[in-house]
Parts: sequence; C-alpha cells; structure tokens
Amino acid sequence: MFSAEDTASILVAALPYIQKYAGKTVVIKYGGNAMISEELKKKVMEDIALMKYVGISPVIVHGGGPDITGMLKKVGKASEFVGGLRVTDQETVEIAEMVLSGKVNSSIVSDLNLKGTPAIGLNGKDAFLLKARKKLAEVHESGRVEKVDIGYVGEVEAVNEKILQDMIDTGYVPVIAPIGMGGEGESYNINADTAAARVAGALRAEKLLLLTDVEGIYRDFGDKSSFISSLSRREAEEYIDSGIIAGGMIPKVEACITALTMGTGKTSIIDGRKPHSLLLELFTPEGIGTEIVK
Amino acid sequence: MFSAEDTASILVAALPYIQKYAGKTVVIKYGGNAMISEELKKKVMEDIALMKYVGISPVIVHGGGPDITGMLKKVGKASEFVGGLRVTDQETVEIAEMVLSGKVNSSIVSDLNLKGTPAIGLNGKDAFLLKARKKLAEVHESGRVEKVDIGYVGEVEAVNEKILQDMIDTGYVPVIAPIGMGGEGESYNINADTAAARVAGALRAEKLLLLTDVEGIYRDFGDKSSFISSLSRREAEEYIDSGIIAGGMIPKVEACITALTMGTGKTSIIDGRKPHSLLLELFTPEGIGTEIVK
Amino acid sequence: MFSAEDTASILVAALPYIQKYAGKTVVIKYGGNAMISEELKKKVMEDIALMKYVGISPVIVHGGGPDITGMLKKVGKASEFVGGLRVTDQETVEIAEMVLSGKVNSSIVSDLNLKGTPAIGLNGKDAFLLKARKKLAEVHESGRVEKVDIGYVGEVEAVNEKILQDMIDTGYVPVIAPIGMGGEGESYNINADTAAARVAGALRAEKLLLLTDVEGIYRDFGDKSSFISSLSRREAEEYIDSGIIAGGMIPKVEACITALTMGTGKTSIIDGRKPHSLLLELFTPEGIGTEIVK
Amino acid sequence: MFSAEDTASILVAALPYIQKYAGKTVVIKYGGNAMISEELKKKVMEDIALMKYVGISPVIVHGGGPDITGMLKKVGKASEFVGGLRVTDQETVEIAEMVLSGKVNSSIVSDLNLKGTPAIGLNGKDAFLLKARKKLAEVHESGRVEKVDIGYVGEVEAVNEKILQDMIDTGYVPVIAPIGMGGEGESYNINADTAAARVAGALRAEKLLLLTDVEGIYRDFGDKSSFISSLSRREAEEYIDSGIIAGGMIPKVEACITALTMGTGKTSIIDGRKPHSLLLELFTPEGIGTEIVK
Amino acid sequence: MFSAEDTASILVAALPYIQKYAGKTVVIKYGGNAMISEELKKKVMEDIALMKYVGISPVIVHGGGPDITGMLKKVGKASEFVGGLRVTDQETVEIAEMVLSGKVNSSIVSDLNLKGTPAIGLNGKDAFLLKARKKLAEVHESGRVEKVDIGYVGEVEAVNEKILQDMIDTGYVPVIAPIGMGGEGESYNINADTAAARVAGALRAEKLLLLTDVEGIYRDFGDKSSFISSLSRREAEEYIDSGIIAGGMIPKVEACITALTMGTGKTSIIDGRKPHSLLLELFTPEGIGTEIVK
Amino acid sequence: MFSAEDTASILVAALPYIQKYAGKTVVIKYGGNAMISEELKKKVMEDIALMKYVGISPVIVHGGGPDITGMLKKVGKASEFVGGLRVTDQETVEIAEMVLSGKVNSSIVSDLNLKGTPAIGLNGKDAFLLKARKKLAEVHESGRVEKVDIGYVGEVEAVNEKILQDMIDTGYVPVIAPIGMGGEGESYNINADTAAARVAGALRAEKLLLLTDVEGIYRDFGDKSSFISSLSRREAEEYIDSGIIAGGMIPKVEACITALTMGTGKTSIIDGRKPHSLLLELFTPEGIGTEIVK
Repeated sequence: MFSAEDTASILVAALPYIQKYAGKTVVIKYGGNAMISEELKKKVMEDIALMKYVGISPVIVHGGGPDITGMLKKVGKASEFVGGLRVTDQETVEIAEMVLSGKVNSSIVSDLNLKGTPAIGLNGKDAFLLKARKKLAEVHESGRVEKVDIGYVGEVEAVNEKILQDMIDTGYVPVIAPIGMGGEGESYNINADTAAARVAGALRAEKLLLLTDVEGIYRDFGDKSSFISSLSRREAEEYIDSGIIAGGMIPKVEACITALTMGTGKTSIIDGRKPHSLLLELFTPEGIGTEIVK
Repeated sequence: MFSAEDTASILVAALPYIQKYAGKTVVIKYGGNAMISEELKKKVMEDIALMKYVGISPVIVHGGGPDITGMLKKVGKASEFVGGLRVTDQETVEIAEMVLSGKVNSSIVSDLNLKGTPAIGLNGKDAFLLKARKKLAEVHESGRVEKVDIGYVGEVEAVNEKILQDMIDTGYVPVIAPIGMGGEGESYNINADTAAARVAGALRAEKLLLLTDVEGIYRDFGDKSSFISSLSRREAEEYIDSGIIAGGMIPKVEACITALTMGTGKTSIIDGRKPHSLLLELFTPEGIGTEIVK
Repeated sequence: MFSAEDTASILVAALPYIQKYAGKTVVIKYGGNAMISEELKKKVMEDIALMKYVGISPVIVHGGGPDITGMLKKVGKASEFVGGLRVTDQETVEIAEMVLSGKVNSSIVSDLNLKGTPAIGLNGKDAFLLKARKKLAEVHESGRVEKVDIGYVGEVEAVNEKILQDMIDTGYVPVIAPIGMGGEGESYNINADTAAARVAGALRAEKLLLLTDVEGIYRDFGDKSSFISSLSRREAEEYIDSGIIAGGMIPKVEACITALTMGTGKTSIIDGRKPHSLLLELFTPEGIGTEIVK
Repeated sequence: MFSAEDTASILVAALPYIQKYAGKTVVIKYGGNAMISEELKKKVMEDIALMKYVGISPVIVHGGGPDITGMLKKVGKASEFVGGLRVTDQETVEIAEMVLSGKVNSSIVSDLNLKGTPAIGLNGKDAFLLKARKKLAEVHESGRVEKVDIGYVGEVEAVNEKILQDMIDTGYVPVIAPIGMGGEGESYNINADTAAARVAGALRAEKLLLLTDVEGIYRDFGDKSSFISSLSRREAEEYIDSGIIAGGMIPKVEACITALTMGTGKTSIIDGRKPHSLLLELFTPEGIGTEIVK
Repeated sequence: MFSAEDTASILVAALPYIQKYAGKTVVIKYGGNAMISEELKKKVMEDIALMKYVGISPVIVHGGGPDITGMLKKVGKASEFVGGLRVTDQETVEIAEMVLSGKVNSSIVSDLNLKGTPAIGLNGKDAFLLKARKKLAEVHESGRVEKVDIGYVGEVEAVNEKILQDMIDTGYVPVIAPIGMGGEGESYNINADTAAARVAGALRAEKLLLLTDVEGIYRDFGDKSSFISSLSRREAEEYIDSGIIAGGMIPKVEACITALTMGTGKTSIIDGRKPHSLLLELFTPEGIGTEIVK
Repeated sequence: MFSAEDTASILVAALPYIQKYAGKTVVIKYGGNAMISEELKKKVMEDIALMKYVGISPVIVHGGGPDITGMLKKVGKASEFVGGLRVTDQETVEIAEMVLSGKVNSSIVSDLNLKGTPAIGLNGKDAFLLKARKKLAEVHESGRVEKVDIGYVGEVEAVNEKILQDMIDTGYVPVIAPIGMGGEGESYNINADTAAARVAGALRAEKLLLLTDVEGIYRDFGDKSSFISSLSRREAEEYIDSGIIAGGMIPKVEACITALTMGTGKTSIIDGRKPHSLLLELFTPEGIGTEIVK
C-alpha cells in the first residue's frame, strides 16, 4: 500500500511526538460537526482510544446545543436569546442538565467504553468539579453596554482538578458535561470552549485542542494562502483588536489565551471535519489547524 | 439535656460499632419517602456525611420512579405496564436515563458535596459499571407463565467493581443511577434494589442497607409484637415459600439474599421514614429494622 | 432503654468528635481515686481500650505515691519531707523505682493487655525516655527562699519522643512510670503531672487529660455555680497570681501551661471520680471538667 | 602493639563472621559472674553495644537470683525450697517482679543507653510477651515422683514475638525480665535460661548464647583435654542420658535443645568469666565454649 | 510530502504496535553490512534510539569478525580454520576480546550515547553475564564425525539475566560483546547469533531480531515469489531437515528456535541492508523479513 | 595462633571502623606493583571482596601502562614522549583503549567475579561516564612553558556519577578503565590517578585510596622517622610549594587535593606493596600510609 520508505519516514517523524506526549494530559473540546456526523464521531472516538493507548491522558469536554434545543421543543418550551445567550430559567437549565449529562455525555462515555477505553462521565457537580457563578449577558443598546440577568447561565469560578487527576491516575478518561454548580447547589449552563480552557489550565495540560468546523485562522479569510499555522498569545490578542480574528472565532481564541495564561503548554484550533484530525495534529511535525502558543 | 451516665452508656455501646465499620464499605439503596420528604432527605445526607466522616465508605444506589413518570407525562408519553413492569421503548429509556442521571443523581451528588462529602455521580455506562441484558417480563396467563419482551428493561450481567473501588480508594462517595449498558451500548432500566444488591455483592460490602417505607418484616403483619429483628438467609427463603414474606417485600428480601450469596456480610431492611435510621441501624447494638444474615 | 431519638442525637453530636481525635495522640495522667478504687480503675481501663479502639493513640503517665509509702514502711524506712517533697536517698529512690516500674506500672500494663489493648510499660530509662536532673526543694524560712538538696528528686531535662512515637506507630499503648535517668545513669523520682505535661508537649499531643479528685476549677470554691469550664492560658496564669487558683491545684494548672507552651493542642483537668470521665470529656460537645487552652 | 600481619590475619578471619551475623538476631542469656563483677559487666555491655553497632540485633534475657534473695531478706520474708525451686507465694512473686523489672532490668537498660545503644526493658506482661502457666515442682519421695504446687512459679506457654520484632525493627535492644503473665493477669517467676530459649525459638534467632560460669562441656570434667567444642542435638541428648552431661548443666543444655527444636540456628554455652566472650564466640573461627547445633 | 490521509492511515496502523511493544524487551543481533556501512550503521543507531524513546528496552548483541581478522593480521598472527571455526589459541582469544570489547563494542556504545541513548558496554565477564564452556569443532572425516579441540571457542552455559534486567530497569541499553567466561576465568569466543538467542531466551524477550544480509527465507531461493513471511518453529525444523533451509541460514534459524524454546515471544530474520529495517519490522502490520514463531 | 585477648582487642578496635564504613563508597586507584605481582593482586582482590562483604561500596579505577607499551611494541609502534606524556595518535589511543578495556579491565572484573563479588567493567564511554577534552602537554623550554598538542591525551571534563550510583545501588562493583570520551565520540587516554580523584569527588565518596609503590610521604625522604601519617589539604599544598613533596608524588597529592575539594571525605596514599594494605588502612585505628584530609 505505502512504500517501506514512506512508512519509515512517517514513523521516524512521528515517534518523537508519540514519546513527547506519553504521560501528558491533552484536553479536547469536542463539538460541532465531529459530534453530529456519525462517521466523524467514530473516527474521533478511535483517535481518543489510540491516544490513551500510547500513553496520553485525554480529557474530553463536550458541548451539546442541538440536543438541548430539541428537548426544549419536545416539552413545548420556547427559547429566548439575549446578547447571543439563551435566557435560561430554572426549567431550562434543568432540561439542559438532563440532556447534557443524561444523554450527550452518556453517549460519548458509552462509545469510548465500547472501544475498550475506560471512560467516566462527569459534570460540574461531581466533587464540585466546576464551581460556577452567574454570568450576566452584555447587551449593546444605544451605544451603552448593559448587563442583563438571563438566569442560570454561568461562568467557571474554580476547577477542582484533584478529581480529574484522580481519574487520570487511576486510568480513566474523564468526559465532562459543561454544567457548573453554584454555592447553593444550583446548576448553571457553561460555555463548553471556556470550560475546556479552564480545565486545561487547572490541569496544566500539555495541550488544548478545540475541534471546530473551520480549518483554522486566516489572515484574510478569502485567501486560502493566508492560512496561519502558528500564533503567539500576544499576536492573537493583537489580531482580535485589529479585527483579523472576528465573529465566532473570538471566543475560541479567547479560550486558548485563557488556557495558556493558566499554564497550558500549547493550544490548537483544528478542523473537526477532517478525519483523524486529532492524530494528525499531535503526531505529525506540521500538525493541522492553527496553533496558539505562549 | 442527657445525663452524663446516659451519654456514657450510649457511647460505650456505640464505640465498638464505630470501630467495627471503620474502613468498611456500606451500600445504601436510597429511595421511597426518605427521598421525597425534604426533611428526611436532609437527615439521610447528614447520616451519609457522618458515616464517611468516621471512616466508613458509603456507596449509594438510588431509585427515581416518580420523577421519571413526571417527565414522561411532560413530553406526553403514556406509560403501559406488563407484569408489573413498565413497557420501555427507546424514547422511554432515553428519558429515564436523562432523569435518573441528569436530575435525581445530580441532585444527591450536589447535596453531598454541599455537606463537604466529595461525591461522584455514576451510571452503569461509566467504565461499564453495570453490564446489562434484556429482562423479559413474566405474564401469568391461564395458568401459564409467558415471557414478554417489554423493551429496554434490563438485569445486571456483571458489575465492574474496580471503578467503584478506585473511587472509594481515592476518597469519593459513588452515587449510582441504575441504568445498565448492553453489549451494543444500548441503555437498560434496572431495578434499583437489585442493582444495589449486585453492587454490594461485587464489592463484598460489609453491609447492604435498603431504605424502605415499612418498619421491617412481621411474622403477622397485623400484630406489632411479631416483628422480626433478625433472619437467616435460609429462614428468609422459607418465609417467602410459606407466604409470611409477600407482595412488595419479596423483591427486597430477594435482593438481600442475592447480596449475601455474593459475599456481602450482612443486609438490613430498614425504615427510611425514621429520622437517622442509617446511624441507628449501624451504631446501636439493637439496630432498627429487620436484618437478614448468612 | 434510651429512645431512638436520644440515641441518634448523642451519636450525631459525638461522631464529629470521634473523627476529630482519630489518629491523634492523647496523653493521660492517671492517678488519685481513679487508681485506688477498683471500680473506677476498671472503667478507666475500659475507656482507654475504647479510645484505642476508635483510632486514638493514648499515652499513660501514672503516679504511685501510696504504694511507695507502703513499701518503705515494709522495709522499715522512715520518710522525711522538706518543702512538701520527700527526702529521697539512694535506698528510697531504688524502692520507689521498684514499686513504680515493677508493681504499679506492671499492673496497669497487665490490665490493658487483658482487655486486648497491647500496652508496654516504660520508665524514663528506656531508650533514655526521660532525661532528668536533680531538683532542689524550696524552703521558705524567715522570709527567704532557700534551695535544699533532698536527694534523688528530679525534673525532666529532655523527653525522647522518638521511642514513644515508635511505640505508637507500631500500635502499642505506652504506660510510663515517672522515673527519670540522670547523666550517670542514676534514677530520679519525678512528679507525675509534670512528666505527663512534658510528654504531651514533646509529642505535640492533641490533648492532655489530668485525672484528679476534684470536679475542676471554681472561681469561688464554695459556690458550685462559679465552675469554670474553659480558661485561656493567659487567664490561668492570672488566676494563679490572683489566688483564685491555689494550693494543690497550682502544680496541675502549671503542668497544663507547660504542655500548651510546648505545643500540646488542649489540656483538661477532669474529675477522675466520675465514671467514664475520659469518654465524656472527649466525645461530648460540653465535655466535663475545666479545659485550659491556648 | 600488634604486627600489621597479625591484625590483617585476624580481620580477614573475622570479616566473614561479621557479615554473616549482620541483620541477624542473637539472643543472650545474661547471668552469673558476668552480671555480678562490675568489670565483666562493663565488657559485656561493650560487646552488646559493638554487636548492635555492626548490624546484629541482640536480645537480652537476664536472671537476678541474688537480688531477689536480698530483697526478701530485707522485708523479713523467709524462703522455702521444694525440689530445688523456691516456694513462691503472692508476696514473694510481687517482690521478685519488683526486683527483676524495677531494679536488675532497669540497671542493664540504663548501662546500654549510657553506651549509646538504645535499649528498652520489658517483662512478660508487656504486650503479653511471655504468656505463662503454673509449673509444679517435682519431688522424688520414696521412689515416686510427686508434683507439688509451690505457688507462682511458671513456665512459658507462648511468646509474643511480634512485640520483640517491632522493637528490633525500630532499632531498640529488648532487655527481658523473666516474669510471665497468666490468663488472669497474675505474675509467674520463670527460669531465665528457659525464657531465653523460648524467646530465641520464637524469633528463629540465628544464635542463642548462654553466659555461664564454666568453660563449657567436658567429656570428663577432670580432664581439661576432653573439652567438647561442638555437639549435635542428638549427641547432647545422649550425653544427658548417659550422665556425661549432669547436674546444673542439664537445664542449660535442655534450653539449647528447646531453642534448636523451635528453629534457632545455633546455640552456645560460653564462659561469661572470660572478658569479651561474646565477641570471641561470634567473630572468631574457633569460637569459645561449647556449641550445640542441629 | 505525504497526504494527511496516508499519514493518518500509517499512524492508525502503527500506534497499536507502538503500544504493544512499550515496556517490552527486544534483543537485536547486530552484524553484517548494517555494521560495515556507515550509512546503515547511522540508521540502525537512529532506530535503536527511537525504540528506546517510545518505551522499548533494546538489548544489543554484536559480532565483529572483520575487525578481529584485521588485528590478528596486524600482529602477524595467521589464522587456521577447522570445521568452519577459527582455531583460537590463548593469544588469539586475547586479541579477539580486546577487539570486541575495546573497539567494536566501545564504538557502538559511543554512537548510542552521542544520540542521547544511555548505553553500557558489557562482555560475558561482567557479573558473569555469559558463563561459557569449551565447544569442540565437528570434523567430518571419512564418513565419521570427529570432535576436535580448537582452543578457546565456547558455547554459552548460562546467562546472568539479572545484570541485564538491572541495566534495563535503571534505563540503560546493554550492548554485549560475545565473549564468554569459563569457570577459571578464561575467555571464550562465542558465536554472536547464539549469544543473542540465549540472551533473548534468558530475558524472555518479546522479540529477537537478527539483522542479516539477506531478505529472509525463500521456499525456492531462485523464485522471489516464494518468500516466506512467517514460519512456525515446527515448520522451521522440518525445513532444515528437508533442506529448504540450508547453508549459513541454518545456524540463524537454529538460534531463533533456541530463543523460542527458552521463552522468547517471537523471532525475526530481517534484512539489515534495508534502511530502518528495525522500525519497519516492529511498527508495521506486515513487517519485513521472515518471522519464526511458536 | 593469637591469644583470645589479642583477638578481642583487635576486634574491639576494628568494629567501630567496620560500622563507620558500612554503606559508604570508597574509591580505589589500583596500579603499580599491586597490579603486577600475582601474589599482591590476589590479596587486593580478597580485600575488595571483604570490603563489599561488610557493606562498603568499592569503586575501582585502574591504570595499565606496561600492558599498553607491550601491545604497542607487538604491533611495531614506537612511542614518543613529550613533557613526560606519551604522544598519542589515533592508532595509539585505539590500542590503549583495547588493552585497558579489553584486557586489563576484563581481567580485574573476571578475578572479582570469580571471588563471588559481582563486578562490571566500564570505560568512560559507557553512559558518557568520563566526558573528556584534549589536554596539552607542557614543555619547559628556554625558561618558557609551551603547550604542545600530543594527540589523544585528555582530561576529565565531567563525570556521570549517576551510572556509578546505579551500579552501586544494584549491588555491583564498578571497575573503570581511564578512557575518556570527547564530544564527537573520540577516545582520550586519561591519567588514572586524576580519573580516580574525579570519580571520588563526583560520588562524594567517603574515602579515596591511592595504591602506590611507596610507604607514603616523608618530611625528609632519607629519614624513616620523618614519616607523615596525616596532613591537612592546606599543609599538602604548602609542602608542594616548599618542595617537601616532589617528583612523582606531586600528581598523586594533587589528585587527593582535587578529590577533597570536590567533596570526598578523606584520602590516603598507601603502600600497595604491603599485603592487605586496604584492610589495614580502613579497619585499624592507626591506618597505614599518609592520610590527606580537609
């Protein structure tokens, strides 16, 4: 199939990376198309299994938007959005928690276990994993920014990394649903990119990988040759200020910056639509996607 | 409040029991009124926290019937019963799993963590904790017993006690939702008493405590003086055969027998309606409820 | 006997204390009536056995005055006292050592072992446990204080806590006779309260308990309502200066102050005439006796 | 002083023995002249200190006859003997215990500690070290052997070798007074040779050394050239039967046989009147005294 | 260079093999062209470094014929051969040892250390690694086989695998010169294939790789399509008997059989002339060369 | 042979020294007559075996001049000397390495192993043990000192003490040939005294022993009574400056100073011609030879 020489070249190139990541923690934000397409989902699970197999400790943080919307519709609950965030009353957050923990999370855990990779589902309440507080939405109105209470939407206050480390040390792959727990035990819906960034920071992970539905960052989105394969944190901040990085890419890049600031080694925004994108990013010299580093 | 002598007597009596259970595993089936009344729920959580505090390793298996029924009603799903068991199609088991894992379990975990007892919610899919297979309902019709497929109702095939032991060893209280996982990753609804019995057996727990809504077993239900405080496994089997133990008590006693057969030290059916019933059963010479032993 | 509610209340109150002392060292000065009455002695041994049982590491330091006096009489040796201390020549200290080590100590060790609590008798010569030097008596004569050499009466110079810690770590209860060893190997008679205080300090014990023949400290000895249940070290010192604490209570309070200064957590002067006074002091919120704390 | 060649020869010869005993347990019965002469006592202590120094774990069992007799006389207690054994009433055994534990033992412990060798005094009550039962005296009267109750004279029923091993493992030299403890906590006077043999057997010691006041065993006591330097257990038994071994030597040889039977490696009866007899026996190829081996 | 898909395919295929060999021992017989060509030597060293890098424990056994011949010529020593083996007098074996240990071995060790792979050179005398005895040459003369003494040519009697395991456990790559040590300390020249086989057997290595100058075994040497990629031990024996395996291949196949018999997992005869043949054999599903298995 | 008293005296004197060195590392420079005379060699090996036996960790660094000269002669290579150092071209250093590693070292290793002392031969290339660089010869010509390149003569740049410590920890005696490895893998001939000093320094050895062919240092070489048994480092430096220490003794004393500066406890220059000089130096109070200390 492949010539012996080609195979040898790829192995000689990959082996140092395999060794480099052995025993290290890699946090993966799993979402988008890679979660919707059954074909891609299968390959992501295969990649995670192989990562675990060669000694990496993967930690998964997943999203779950479409399923929540579906369930809300099923129980006849209309959704209202303010400043891009869903208004989340008590009933909504309860349904979000049920769907994220009791369905999406469960399904990923189940797939990994079927592949022989022992996984455990967690949400932010388990051993106070994600301590959270209310996050107000920002509404830009008549030139002013106003903060609006939209209910049980939260932000991470603290991560109990001990529980994750205990799981990793005893050989399990933690799969985390982004539900936070407030000081009174109340639930909060948390953005999955941010949750992944905070988890990567708390674990001082070797790498944070955000699976997205784009190839990475372009200097000029229309010009394929302007692809940026590596950025420093400082450059990333400048590109946001100057508008090179814009729209939905901003929160993802900010998540990377947060993770780096808290001690994560490297971060990458990669194309989850490409099969085996995780392996290619980790084990080839050129990687794929856009890397943001210190 | 209490005389020094009374206090001393109770302590002298309790200390040997406290020592006896130190470092031991006690599995608690949590359900019934003790789960519905907020007052009782608070005391059960307090008891579990104190048990953990004095060195016992509690493991919780909970039920959740009323909440599932509530949610099914909400999404407009009618329930059908065959042979006393709910017919459980794909949508029903999905909702059961969401409610059990994403709501009931989550809420117990949250309460324990607020009390400073680090708890982790699990269901049968986590690290293949409860491997399950389909269980057919038995329908007695015209003198014959017929087996009927009622969907995703399951029975435990195997328990992965390693994951529980790992949790216990790293200091967490496992809280288990009785959802089983089939060989293809499909979910099964499992009876919580049976699940607790299998977990207690797999862990070779020191004790299995079933919280119920009755005081225990009577030789003659109408005569309070006929209360049975201790039964051997063999006697329990005879009492079922002779009809002394009947109705809803049968599956609970069978769960105790299963646990004993698999290596659990002792089992007790106790009255969850009594405040602090867990502490009284464990730390007083007379205990409460009916004990079934080898 | 007791209502379930009362029992539950006492347990709920006691469990945190039981946990608090688990793994901690508690030094007990054993003397007075609790040593003379066979009835009380039995209960003290029971308490020590239960303490060990629930994970506390008790260390006993005992007195032995009456037995020494008895033996001196037997061999026809008259006792002379100067400044409240017995003049102790070579023959006297030899007899004191034989009685304390070879009789009183032996008898406590024997009782504990019969209760299944592995105890080991020690005196200050074992592994140089209590390094001692001569202590002069203070005689108040015509307004002056004169120091008088009364022979082999000593004070502790240093405690070899390693030997005690080794005993504790290997699971034994050390029972210590207050005989000190001088630099030439000579024996000294040491006051048992002081020896206990020094041992508690050297071990940085959680608690020092002095069993006495009084209820504790009163602000006004004639007025039972003036009982003091807790005192700070500073207050204790003031009360000695102001004469509220007087007579035989002074050396006991000074022993507590010494222990606190050297790192003991808390100290208590308790009534050894009350049955199970050790358990009541340790495992009830109100305790008994007078506590002196930092 | 010595030529380099002589020194080298002695070292080359001794080093393998030093290595051979490193980490091994050697039980020494200490008694007789080596205990009475201050000069010899000093050298025995020096030898024990050096043994400990080069990695041997010595365990001392001592006698104490003359001191007990002295004390009994002091309190005006007459001694009666039946079948060679002292009739030992309650008062006598109490005085024996005080003298052995509180004086003789204390003095050995003190001497070793002054030499920098951490020693701990024990008697049979410490952690139930020597469990004992009554031993009847045998009286030969008109051709018959009658068993006579002579009070608190005992024989060893069981040795708690764990406490000795714990002491050894934590670096202490156990010094044992031969007082046994009966099932009710009562004290028994035990023969020191036998106690040493049982201790050596229980510890499966490498060697048992009995310090005596003779050079060893002679085939013909009058003929110095008939000295026996090594005997097998079987030969020793034959020599007792045939009368070659007689009188006071019999119980010593029987102690050796007991120790060998229970698992001690080798035993030696050596001349405690010779300075440094312990070192010469252990570290020279020829040894001194008579060795009895399996 | 390579497409992402090709790279992903090769990695997905290789990762399980990388994991499979992690922590395992692989013994490599290094000789032939791969030792003579500087280009190939560099690649072999690179492969060994990568193997160590991903967690394999390589053990090298090397030959060295040409260098020995060179040195013998230099000192003017003529070589005589009997039955295919060099007649090896005292001077010859001394020179062989100097060349193998002091030159060839040294050079491999030096190359690996320069690559950052900590290697240690050994010969059979180090900690008695290769205990050897004289091996007689077999001379076929007039139909009879005669055994002839040709001096210091030896065969392995025993391997001290402990020293190798100690090296491996402390992280070093052992590099072994095939010099054996006789019972009197005399040196023997040992065949390197056999030495490698015995080492692989003693270590119960996962794999033995023999680097040769052929592609592997052919059923019919002239027909390239008759290449045998896998053989059972039994088949290998039959092929030798039937002459399919012949000539210089026989001792190599016999070495494989010896290693398998002693507990080596698998063996392979591979083409050392192919670059990176070690990596290709280990980390690709098809491997290269001929594998001989149980 | 010796009187018991003499034997006891020597043992009493030696035991503290034996204990003092137990578990310590002693580096021995082995060379001179003790290496040439078979009789002395046997005794040195016996001493090293005994040292290891009583718990010392010996490390040997050996020389090998005569054998190298012999081999150079054999291959017809003439030697040229500049500034007292042999001009060492590529061929010369190759032969030196073969002789030192493949013959002299091998023979010492073999002798120790035959005595039951597990030894391993090393040279500076093993795990980069002796990192070396070129050392220029100093030629004194017409009042000036000129530095001359004489080829592969080196000096130690760094010692990898980890490999030695690993050997020691796993129970082996390292035997080191003084060949250093340069940054490109090239070999250097290193002076054995200096190599031993650097090894002793890197290991922070308890003692460095240099075996020489003289009795030690004399204040006045002609006057036997002027023998110096102990010198401080400072005195040693002054004696070199003042010419009391001169000639071939200078590099040896300088080696001692180097070792002391780097953390070796003590150093001794001893007479290798005296049988058992190692034992006499270590285990007698007076030692032999001249000690140089901090």
